[in-house]
Amino acid sequence: MRNDPEMSLHGCPMDIDLGTTDLVAERSTGNVVWVKGVAIGGAEAVVMAGPCSVETRSQIFETAYAVKACGAVVLRGGAFKPRTSPADFQGLGADGIKLLREAGDAAGLPIITEIMSEDDIGIGCEFADMIQIGARNMQNFSLLKKLGKTDKPVLLKRGLSATVKEWLCAADYILQGGNEQVVLCERGIRTFDNSLRNTLDLAAVALVKEMSDLPVIVDPSHATGKRSLIAATSKAAIAVGADGLIIEVHPRPDEAWSDAAQSLDIESFADVMRNLRTPIRHISTTVEPAYAIR
Amino acid sequence: MRNDPEMSLHGCPMDIDLGTTDLVAERSTGNVVWVKGVAIGGAEAVVMAGPCSVETRSQIFETAYAVKACGAVVLRGGAFKPRTSPADFQGLGADGIKLLREAGDAAGLPIITEIMSEDDIGIGCEFADMIQIGARNMQNFSLLKKLGKTDKPVLLKRGLSATVKEWLCAADYILQGGNEQVVLCERGIRTFDNSLRNTLDLAAVALVKEMSDLPVIVDPSHATGKRSLIAATSKAAIAVGADGLIIEVHPRPDEAWSDAAQSLDIESFADVMRNLRTPIRHISTTVEPAYAIR
Amino acid sequence: MRNDPEMSLHGCPMDIDLGTTDLVAERSTGNVVWVKGVAIGGAEAVVMAGPCSVETRSQIFETAYAVKACGAVVLRGGAFKPRTSPADFQGLGADGIKLLREAGDAAGLPIITEIMSEDDIGIGCEFADMIQIGARNMQNFSLLKKLGKTDKPVLLKRGLSATVKEWLCAADYILQGGNEQVVLCERGIRTFDNSLRNTLDLAAVALVKEMSDLPVIVDPSHATGKRSLIAATSKAAIAVGADGLIIEVHPRPDEAWSDAAQSLDIESFADVMRNLRTPIRHISTTVEPAYAIR
Amino acid sequence: MRNDPEMSLHGCPMDIDLGTTDLVAERSTGNVVWVKGVAIGGAEAVVMAGPCSVETRSQIFETAYAVKACGAVVLRGGAFKPRTSPADFQGLGADGIKLLREAGDAAGLPIITEIMSEDDIGIGCEFADMIQIGARNMQNFSLLKKLGKTDKPVLLKRGLSATVKEWLCAADYILQGGNEQVVLCERGIRTFDNSLRNTLDLAAVALVKEMSDLPVIVDPSHATGKRSLIAATSKAAIAVGADGLIIEVHPRPDEAWSDAAQSLDIESFADVMRNLRTPIRHISTTVEPAYAIR
Repeated sequence: MRNDPEMSLHGCPMDIDLGTTDLVAERSTGNVVWVKGVAIGGAEAVVMAGPCSVETRSQIFETAYAVKACGAVVLRGGAFKPRTSPADFQGLGADGIKLLREAGDAAGLPIITEIMSEDDIGIGCEFADMIQIGARNMQNFSLLKKLGKTDKPVLLKRGLSATVKEWLCAADYILQGGNEQVVLCERGIRTFDNSLRNTLDLAAVALVKEMSDLPVIVDPSHATGKRSLIAATSKAAIAVGADGLIIEVHPRPDEAWSDAAQSLDIESFADVMRNLRTPIRHISTTVEPAYAIR
Repeated sequence: MRNDPEMSLHGCPMDIDLGTTDLVAERSTGNVVWVKGVAIGGAEAVVMAGPCSVETRSQIFETAYAVKACGAVVLRGGAFKPRTSPADFQGLGADGIKLLREAGDAAGLPIITEIMSEDDIGIGCEFADMIQIGARNMQNFSLLKKLGKTDKPVLLKRGLSATVKEWLCAADYILQGGNEQVVLCERGIRTFDNSLRNTLDLAAVALVKEMSDLPVIVDPSHATGKRSLIAATSKAAIAVGADGLIIEVHPRPDEAWSDAAQSLDIESFADVMRNLRTPIRHISTTVEPAYAIR
Repeated sequence: MRNDPEMSLHGCPMDIDLGTTDLVAERSTGNVVWVKGVAIGGAEAVVMAGPCSVETRSQIFETAYAVKACGAVVLRGGAFKPRTSPADFQGLGADGIKLLREAGDAAGLPIITEIMSEDDIGIGCEFADMIQIGARNMQNFSLLKKLGKTDKPVLLKRGLSATVKEWLCAADYILQGGNEQVVLCERGIRTFDNSLRNTLDLAAVALVKEMSDLPVIVDPSHATGKRSLIAATSKAAIAVGADGLIIEVHPRPDEAWSDAAQSLDIESFADVMRNLRTPIRHISTTVEPAYAIR
Repeated sequence: MRNDPEMSLHGCPMDIDLGTTDLVAERSTGNVVWVKGVAIGGAEAVVMAGPCSVETRSQIFETAYAVKACGAVVLRGGAFKPRTSPADFQGLGADGIKLLREAGDAAGLPIITEIMSEDDIGIGCEFADMIQIGARNMQNFSLLKKLGKTDKPVLLKRGLSATVKEWLCAADYILQGGNEQVVLCERGIRTFDNSLRNTLDLAAVALVKEMSDLPVIVDPSHATGKRSLIAATSKAAIAVGADGLIIEVHPRPDEAWSDAAQSLDIESFADVMRNLRTPIRHISTTVEPAYAIR
């Protein structure tokens, strides 16, 4: 039934007018995706945190305990790294996933890690609590179809130049396979402006939540590529309606093997978490209370 | 002194590395731009509101009273309209500015309006409290230079494809003339994604506030072009650090002569204002208080 | 009659479907714009050449004679320069235009120069044979409207992020004023790829020639920003159907006051001109003549 | 040796300055990639043609004979189709590749087809003469690495938002595995302008040929998405220096199961081929021969 094109959950043929269409995924499980006891898309927003790459046992354990202490509820860490050049560090592979698993268990946090190859679905599903599909693989349809046949929660990052419709259609490749545990992740799009690493598209978060009931989280680390902007953009992400955040944290960012410029140290991550709990700026008003509407 | 290139407030030659440079405007007046008693860039965020175009006396008066009652502190309205095609409605011109002035005075709100031509600087400065330079004219350097010789506050919208550096350099054309009353306005940039009218670039707001002490406001109406997203994106704009908002409001949006799809009616605008005063979503934590950092 | 919106030559309201519409300007003068004896849009393609900026008398005279000797038929040179930062060289102004006029007359070439301000229309029309409107001013509608009231040929460059439709609509602002002497110029658009200064959009040249009968030329210098690519892209521009080229040439590019990296020296410009006259690469075929279609 | 990062053929770490670097692949086989007797990157440009999708035996046989008769030297046809939505036609799969093989053999043309999954490398290498990697999979590094271990020629399409550097780095994933038979394909990039399906980036073709000795071909069908522009853009591609073209041809485009709007019928394809053999437009000159340089 789910494979009938006419019954597509998102059903996004090329001629859809996104401005007016109700493109709502009616998942039988409701709005929440559960990652080993953590609810994504529920009443509270969640924070996932951890290093870009799993580097060493001590690095990932130290990070796991620290981000837990700051309030993160999922541990992230890369073992298979998609790198622009084959000359760049490619990740620890299977060893990295196992270290991440151990660190997550020790700290009491479920873990998320990226897989890039159809060959790695097995090991990913065995060791991780949630599989991340990166921006470059958002339209790796063969990979998506195979994940649709698993029951593992999937975090589907938006492609660098994917429209909102293409992003939802990519999610549909997983949903139609029968796996309804899909969370979307906005991580910045590629535009003309190279002031920052990418352009964080928060309006798309609000839009995609109108068009779908899939939970949506935001990755301010990749979106901005700039440490000093993580706090402000994280707060804006929650304000716009995101169900959570995924943030790169490293005990010593300047020694990180990848993505140093955008990784927070522990203390800065703690500041980001505290900042999320402070009220937003007060709005000026010259209105006398008696005259205000309501 | 101010015209010495070496003394440029922003001083943004083409080879600046924006990632590391302190490009801080040290204005003698501090961070605040005053628009007839309204402080932009002060402790509180401000909301400007009004119709895309001034259409009729009753329309602009009705809107002025209504947005004031909702908490707006500046009245906006277009008299000279930059339209893609010469066949589109071009605005009421001088008559429009005068109607706007009357409506603002009646409601007790300062007014802002766009000018497009060097010829209109005179009438703009005579009747308006703040001059808006639209995205298409962000690099109309002749116009900017002349505004630099006035003492009128200027709202400088970001160009559709302007980098953050180009935006600051455009502001510098005004500042170097001696007019320090400049407020920046992020209004969405043009990207590949046509899901919405533009792509709201809130990280740029945080970035530009790091690089400059100019106040920055956000225009969620043009940025999204979609009524239903104004509330969420407005809140995110304040959360990211914007000093205010400029929002299109029309008593009967479906009858608006321009920009109908993005204009809010009065009740929806009141909802947006209320939403700005509610707390953002609570962040989940599994941390026992005893273990939390601080 | 010409000001009747319904009679717009291009008539480009926002809801036009460019894929199927015939948006043909039916100019009474046919396809050709005459610039003092030079036909643009006729049987032969034309080359305009000269320095980014008029710097000194000897520089512009030397350039004028040299480009003429290489086959250029119009002399270009900037007197009013639109520069991102007010700290950059702004051009020689009126003195520059007059020098350009003298050099053109001496070499026997009509001249084209950019104006940026409504205030400069007078001097521009007095001294130049063709007025250039730069990318940043493509939607400076006040300027365009005033040029529509003159009888001076106008070269309208495409905006950095202008769609083909917006470009044609901008031309319409001039055409509707009664000035039919408009030539379009593709000069590269702004995209995510910063490998080159801009992205040369040659398919848009073919498209705009389907949609309009306005002549179209190409500026490979600004489009690529890279000297070594001018020859190849110039040839491709003519192959795609452009009516001509405008190329930056400087006697000693490394001493140029602006745009050094993209300016050709005289010998390289001569090479570009020669390359335009060589045949394009032969197409392989394994087909026996007897079996080939026709 | 080839796997030593320091010895990377393209060696493109993130900090390379593309403006000045010689990023030359020194392949031991020289500039030419051989596809079963067809030289790509040699003295003559080559044309590959065929339908977007293999649909039926009669459709692919008819097309094969026809494109051969027009001068095409490689037959293309899709069996595994990357489609935005899972509800769209996904291709005939293995049956499609086998039909394509039969048609190619009958017409005496080598064949190229796209594979999307690591699982399909086997069947692809068994039946096809050249493997195409589509734009969406340009950074599917797992797939690229595995192709690097084969000896099959690979056509690597540029990603929708890939910079020239990223494109070359993706090629490096194949080259470093030991497979030097890589041809690049420019097929349009994604920009703000939706006048056409994509933006054909011909300057990038010239640039990439400066930076590498890999052959480069152009796909005007996907780049423009518009039948009427194929002839002009094909000619421009050859003029800019491309080593060939890949063009979508269908006996009855309006009945095509995919990409109907951009497919040529046989007669139009013959026109494109003829147009490639006509000279480009003559360049005007007012220069007396005696005064011309050389």
